[in-house]
Amino acid sequence: MNTSSKLLDRAVEHFSKLPGIGKKSALRMALFILKQPKENVELFAQSLISLRSDVKRCKICNMVSDSELCPICSSPSRNRSVVCVVESVRDVLSIENTQRYNGLYHVLDGIISPIDGVGPSDLPIAELEERIKKGEIKEVILALSTSMEGETTSYFIYNRLKKYEIVISSIARGVAFGDDLEYTDELTLAKSIENRQPFKI
Amino acid sequence: MNTSSKLLDRAVEHFSKLPGIGKKSALRMALFILKQPKENVELFAQSLISLRSDVKRCKICNMVSDSELCPICSSPSRNRSVVCVVESVRDVLSIENTQRYNGLYHVLDGIISPIDGVGPSDLPIAELEERIKKGEIKEVILALSTSMEGETTSYFIYNRLKKYEIVISSIARGVAFGDDLEYTDELTLAKSIENRQPFKI
Repeated sequence: MNTSSKLLDRAVEHFSKLPGIGKKSALRMALFILKQPKENVELFAQSLISLRSDVKRCKICNMVSDSELCPICSSPSRNRSVVCVVESVRDVLSIENTQRYNGLYHVLDGIISPIDGVGPSDLPIAELEERIKKGEIKEVILALSTSMEGETTSYFIYNRLKKYEIVISSIARGVAFGDDLEYTDELTLAKSIENRQPFKI
Repeated sequence: MNTSSKLLDRAVEHFSKLPGIGKKSALRMALFILKQPKENVELFAQSLISLRSDVKRCKICNMVSDSELCPICSSPSRNRSVVCVVESVRDVLSIENTQRYNGLYHVLDGIISPIDGVGPSDLPIAELEERIKKGEIKEVILALSTSMEGETTSYFIYNRLKKYEIVISSIARGVAFGDDLEYTDELTLAKSIENRQPFKI
């Protein structure tokens, strides 16, 4: 961007690095900042700095947290015998939003991807194994994506954990509620028939 | 947003105030910030603060600028007898991008809109009149939108300036280059016939 102000150019440059933001949206954001009260802009800037420098990772599950243990791991009302393995912080928030899961999590914060140079040792899989060795966990639910990388990671974790006396499950795949069969991809439809469930009222 | 970290919540809150950004995109941005090198986040934060506190407005045309006069008003190669009146900084950048206009600008940084409590005296229209009184300007091009507010503002400025010996023009409206007549709205199409131009090769 080459506007009439270097300060504006620089802010646009920073905004356009954000995920999903192009030059035009970045300009819109920078001009929006220009119109905000000074205090609000300072609070925003300060919030970015403290987010980056003060946020911790839960030492049990690797979730973002303000203290050493995240609210989920430190809650007495959660079921400590089930752990759901997810790729990212966003996945935890999505599952929490359903309000139907009461177990714990393990956030990999990444996925095995040789192309991006991410191997198994870059992910906290040894930490997951340590949690299981303690004996409290009875089930591990793999909730990774069905991409090549997700399947590889699931398979790697399965291989690593199968020697323990725990159930290793994976979330159900099938036709989403409200979706038409007509518009469902063939793989999902085929799997949904293969993995059919007893009818419940 | 109610995540496992108050710091994260606060950053998401700030991001979601940006134009066009909902909670989900805001969360994506905040998690992106978490993964950036500390220095980059500090540069970003600093850039926001200095954008807000150090950017000036050109004292002639009201464009954003790092100094008292913007690069356009201080350029010796611009045609100082034509002034294009626009609503926003973005409009100046769009017109500059065409590289086909060599005159000056007057940025209203708003538009007359009684609903939003913006009256003529909130816009730098008196300043525009002062520029014209100096006698150098021979033409004012109104490049405001065709919304009710835009038309009102154009009409107000026209009324205010018509007593001076200048040409007051408005940008051409018509069927855009590459557009099909079939898909052009009726008003635009009707006006494009009414305002037809001599055919040029």
